[in-house]
Amino acid sequence: MEAIRLKDYTIYVGPLQQSLRGFLEGLSYSALFVIADDNTEEHCLPFLEEALGHSRHHLIRIPPGEEHKNLGTCQQIWAQLMEQRAGRDALVLNLGGGVIGDMGGFCAATFKRGVRFIQIPTTLLSQVDASIGGKLGIDFRQVKNSIGLFQDPLGVFIDPAFLETLPRRELRSGYAEIIKHSLIADAGQWEVLQQLQRLDQAGWEALIIPSLRIKKKVVEADPFEKGLRKALNFGHTIGHAIEGFALETERPLLHGEAVAIGMACEAFLSAREVGLPENDMERIAGYVVQHYGHEALDPGNYEAYLNLMGNDKKNEGQRINFSLINPVGQAVINQYCPPELIIESLEFYNSLTGL
Amino acid sequence: MEAIRLKDYTIYVGPLQQSLRGFLEGLSYSALFVIADDNTEEHCLPFLEEALGHSRHHLIRIPPGEEHKNLGTCQQIWAQLMEQRAGRDALVLNLGGGVIGDMGGFCAATFKRGVRFIQIPTTLLSQVDASIGGKLGIDFRQVKNSIGLFQDPLGVFIDPAFLETLPRRELRSGYAEIIKHSLIADAGQWEVLQQLQRLDQAGWEALIIPSLRIKKKVVEADPFEKGLRKALNFGHTIGHAIEGFALETERPLLHGEAVAIGMACEAFLSAREVGLPENDMERIAGYVVQHYGHEALDPGNYEAYLNLMGNDKKNEGQRINFSLINPVGQAVINQYCPPELIIESLEFYNSLTGL
Repeated sequence: MEAIRLKDYTIYVGPLQQSLRGFLEGLSYSALFVIADDNTEEHCLPFLEEALGHSRHHLIRIPPGEEHKNLGTCQQIWAQLMEQRAGRDALVLNLGGGVIGDMGGFCAATFKRGVRFIQIPTTLLSQVDASIGGKLGIDFRQVKNSIGLFQDPLGVFIDPAFLETLPRRELRSGYAEIIKHSLIADAGQWEVLQQLQRLDQAGWEALIIPSLRIKKKVVEADPFEKGLRKALNFGHTIGHAIEGFALETERPLLHGEAVAIGMACEAFLSAREVGLPENDMERIAGYVVQHYGHEALDPGNYEAYLNLMGNDKKNEGQRINFSLINPVGQAVINQYCPPELIIESLEFYNSLTGL
Repeated sequence: MEAIRLKDYTIYVGPLQQSLRGFLEGLSYSALFVIADDNTEEHCLPFLEEALGHSRHHLIRIPPGEEHKNLGTCQQIWAQLMEQRAGRDALVLNLGGGVIGDMGGFCAATFKRGVRFIQIPTTLLSQVDASIGGKLGIDFRQVKNSIGLFQDPLGVFIDPAFLETLPRRELRSGYAEIIKHSLIADAGQWEVLQQLQRLDQAGWEALIIPSLRIKKKVVEADPFEKGLRKALNFGHTIGHAIEGFALETERPLLHGEAVAIGMACEAFLSAREVGLPENDMERIAGYVVQHYGHEALDPGNYEAYLNLMGNDKKNEGQRINFSLINPVGQAVINQYCPPELIIESLEFYNSLTGL
């Protein structure tokens, strides 16, 4: 059992049964709610129930997938909390990936002006990304996480056993954030990742813990994303736009798959705007294609991508703001890039197919 | 100009022009949004625009009234912020009564995970009540303020000139909170209020300031309503239920009108449960009828009132929790009252018509 202590809560990495039961015994609450979707109900709830022992809980079931991370689903969650007469001293356990953590946390933090919640992230992505930072939220009008707030959970419980039930695509989606953490803040870890040839050979616990420590360092220096924390947006300005667009098509991309493409594009921007050496740009782009394959971007959609970037919440006013890197392991925030250069970066990514 | 300094922000009482313009000049923001309804657009926006001088702003117009304090209206507000490409460094001015302050604040605090906002309360109720405490929220499924959060504004600007345009019912609604503040925390101020025979003779500025100081004291001792602050619920457990029920009828009550009835009922509960002297109970009840008249409560609705109380967000678990008083000027929180006694208190109020 590894415990990563943040300012206001602790992340426990290890079997749920060893960590969660004792934690709950130390808390007082009037009722316990578990938010899960069809997938986590089937694959993860049995583990959780074992850890809960005899504690009774109400299950709130929501449909799975990013397309349900919206106000409609929030209303279902709030309505069930209300119907079960949840008091302000209830406790909510969010059992799932980023969608459940973000949305379940948002619903808890706004129900009766704030019910306590615990995050039990079940995907690699949510384990390495959403478990630190207190960012909660939902999508609104196709713009990801445009409604939300910052609120820390009581605790986060990461059980690597959950990863065994994950599809390969889910794992590589989460791995994109592990790559990103190394690129923005730990060049040594980036060299470690270079050794990993195939994701199915990864020892996840050993990759998750250093990644969490990097994110902890960045977030604690800037809890409300006023400056430094923007480093975490590397790959995300373009990645979010590609993800948001793909969500509406028949070929949706997972978050990390889109962010991987975004990192390749933004490595190009880093080379052009802040002097990242060309060979680092090539290594990053090559590594993305090695692990994620190549997803051609239709030039007919470039304009739509740019529009989605314009409404990305991280852009103050109407400028399009990037968090770039130079050298590897160090972020350079607040870099404005003109639309033409952004399009060049998309073309750079498209050119990688011949690598 | 009076300035009441709270921990994280200041309440300015006096003409907007003297207070707001300089405050805004000291801030940096990418765009200014004003949320108003038809009433405040007509009666208050001209004052505000004068104070703003040449600053450009976007007006977000919402329909007036508690019945629009819901997610549907929030979606209109968020959509307009999004259409105008509001960045996270935008600034929102909430120009209106409690509905606009609570809902506009909630929308700002959750848009892009938090946009700064300023409260400009235009009703007596919002000036003395909503301007301290950082409570934001909306109604959901008929339950008042059941979705929301705590977030302080950048500042609060109270211009007593706005009160001149208010209907008499609005004034007496706000006055209920002034009565309440004295009853829970300042017996001397309660004696002062006894001198006031007619509300149209009131000097509001002189009543608002001591009332704000009482609320400041209570809220600062307990910012997240974990204990002492529950004192402010005096009159509200029953008052909210009466208000929520009346909202669905052809005879809706204003918040303070319902709270006044609630205070009469809860003065009865205070006498029965915590020893408030009978003559104080009679004085409180008599004072309510003197200023608010009498609104007969149909015994056929008692059950519905009780159900609404059961879902009041201040009740932990399924108990019905009251904040009572004894003696006048001192609150006694966390008093559980059984349904039969609550019904007796409603009957006590009904009996007052003959006083």
